Amino acid sequence: MTDSPVRPEPVGPVHDYERPDGQQLVDALVWLLDLETIERDIYRGVSPKESLQRVFGGQVAGQALIAAGRTVDPERKVHSLHSYFIRPGDPAVPIVYTVDRVRDGGSFSTRRVVAVQHGAAIFSLSASFQLPQEGIDHQSPMPEAPDPEQLPTALSWLKAHGIMLPKFQLEWPFDLRWVDPPSQLADAFDGPSEEPHRTWMRAAGVLPDDRLLHACALTYASDLLLLDSVLLKHRLSFRQEGLRLASLDHAVWFHRPFRADEWLLYAQESPSASGGRGLAMGRIFTRDGRHVATVMQEGMIRLPSA
Amino acid sequence: MTDSPVRPEPVGPVHDYERPDGQQLVDALVWLLDLETIERDIYRGVSPKESLQRVFGGQVAGQALIAAGRTVDPERKVHSLHSYFIRPGDPAVPIVYTVDRVRDGGSFSTRRVVAVQHGAAIFSLSASFQLPQEGIDHQSPMPEAPDPEQLPTALSWLKAHGIMLPKFQLEWPFDLRWVDPPSQLADAFDGPSEEPHRTWMRAAGVLPDDRLLHACALTYASDLLLLDSVLLKHRLSFRQEGLRLASLDHAVWFHRPFRADEWLLYAQESPSASGGRGLAMGRIFTRDGRHVATVMQEGMIRLPSA
Repeated sequence: MTDSPVRPEPVGPVHDYERPDGQQLVDALVWLLDLETIERDIYRGVSPKESLQRVFGGQVAGQALIAAGRTVDPERKVHSLHSYFIRPGDPAVPIVYTVDRVRDGGSFSTRRVVAVQHGAAIFSLSASFQLPQEGIDHQSPMPEAPDPEQLPTALSWLKAHGIMLPKFQLEWPFDLRWVDPPSQLADAFDGPSEEPHRTWMRAAGVLPDDRLLHACALTYASDLLLLDSVLLKHRLSFRQEGLRLASLDHAVWFHRPFRADEWLLYAQESPSASGGRGLAMGRIFTRDGRHVATVMQEGMIRLPSA
Repeated sequence: MTDSPVRPEPVGPVHDYERPDGQQLVDALVWLLDLETIERDIYRGVSPKESLQRVFGGQVAGQALIAAGRTVDPERKVHSLHSYFIRPGDPAVPIVYTVDRVRDGGSFSTRRVVAVQHGAAIFSLSASFQLPQEGIDHQSPMPEAPDPEQLPTALSWLKAHGIMLPKFQLEWPFDLRWVDPPSQLADAFDGPSEEPHRTWMRAAGVLPDDRLLHACALTYASDLLLLDSVLLKHRLSFRQEGLRLASLDHAVWFHRPFRADEWLLYAQESPSASGGRGLAMGRIFTRDGRHVATVMQEGMIRLPSA
């Protein structure tokens, strides 16, 4: 966690900036996730040059999960991760990821990863991997939603409302289609917001056939929008002057195989907010209704008056 | 996590064993949570002598949270924890808890605790503490439930159904009142089970006025019943011959102050099960409807045929 916002801050808001080709953005994400090996269990990753005052939390989580996965038998698939954001990341210098091989059991492997910059931990993640098995099966029903093709892109929606975007968001490697208005447009609609808040998302280009990479891409994407569900309960926009927002933790349970470059419905709700913090829960479904992941995140939320 | 069950296993089932006085059981819990200080940031705890083949996971989680809290300014209150069960605990030897003071920031403190036995980590926990603050406020509605005084004790219900209990469960330091039948009685009722599954619980005696201790007691109690919600989806009982059940992880978010020795409603559901694992989510409410905690746990669930 951090005492300062780790949410995207614009280098300067831009409006008519041309969004690069989607496949280029996805290739850049794959490159970000392709960590350099420094030594056994020590990896190094970089951040995009131009984007943020602080490193995007989803990037660090995705890179840390790649580092963990590199030390695990590829037959074992990640089924959960738990992480804390400890300090803001500095985009100007690389991030070093050190993996502790906590345990390799008969069917499960546990790993812990610490991300370090300037001699201090900025992020820690624990993850568990499992040999595929069979067992009982049930899942949450998928909320109904119109097809993503029937919905405007998030970008066109924001532009239509005259909302300036940071370059970071324009170069976001995912296509987003909001079913329900996001907090950025909270002042543009009336009435209580629907729950769960629904968003279609998919990588803006093709990702390689590597299940770990798809899990990391989903982890990356799952961090962007989640605290919106907390703000929406109060018709707050994260564009509000003086609002300070920071991800404190992030947990993902991967239930079933999926591709992050096919449409996924992200259904979000907020079970509670109090004491300057808000908890968000997301469920992620494939287009054909399979529940593929559950996400939990608590955020620090400080209002201008507080 | 473990590859073997960490759920209570009887030393031998008992039926008519007299349950000790509730306050005695709670005093024993307080004693378990009163760790011995070995060195700065190193603590040692023991397990009850007689109870289990393996240490109860909730006990390790509660002890680890006490260890973390001992190193934090008492003005800072725990608001979340994330943990993994790594190896089965051995009740015959003490557990050593080593705390890493990850960060003390302006308003948040982060700690990591590793629990070790026989030279190997059996459990790891990260927790975050915060100076009390104000902010936006909302919460889940509490499910309706009859008053706990109108309900039979869990013990009388089990005895009425002729179910033999391990001594561990008889000496459980919490009073439980099931609103909905538990998985142990899954074969004793028809029809689909209600969701969420509701249980009233409170410590069986008075706990000292120490907010951290109440958080640890709730963490202890929150681990006992949670995977029931996964089993109930399939009308499975955890008494079923050959069923192997193990907690893999455990996360708690503490939203609002509470006392663990006053009635709390534990409402549980299971968002998903697949691949030999099941995810459970619990929400905990005070009697007057305040949402005080959210709990997530994934469990390994192996059926006899698998």
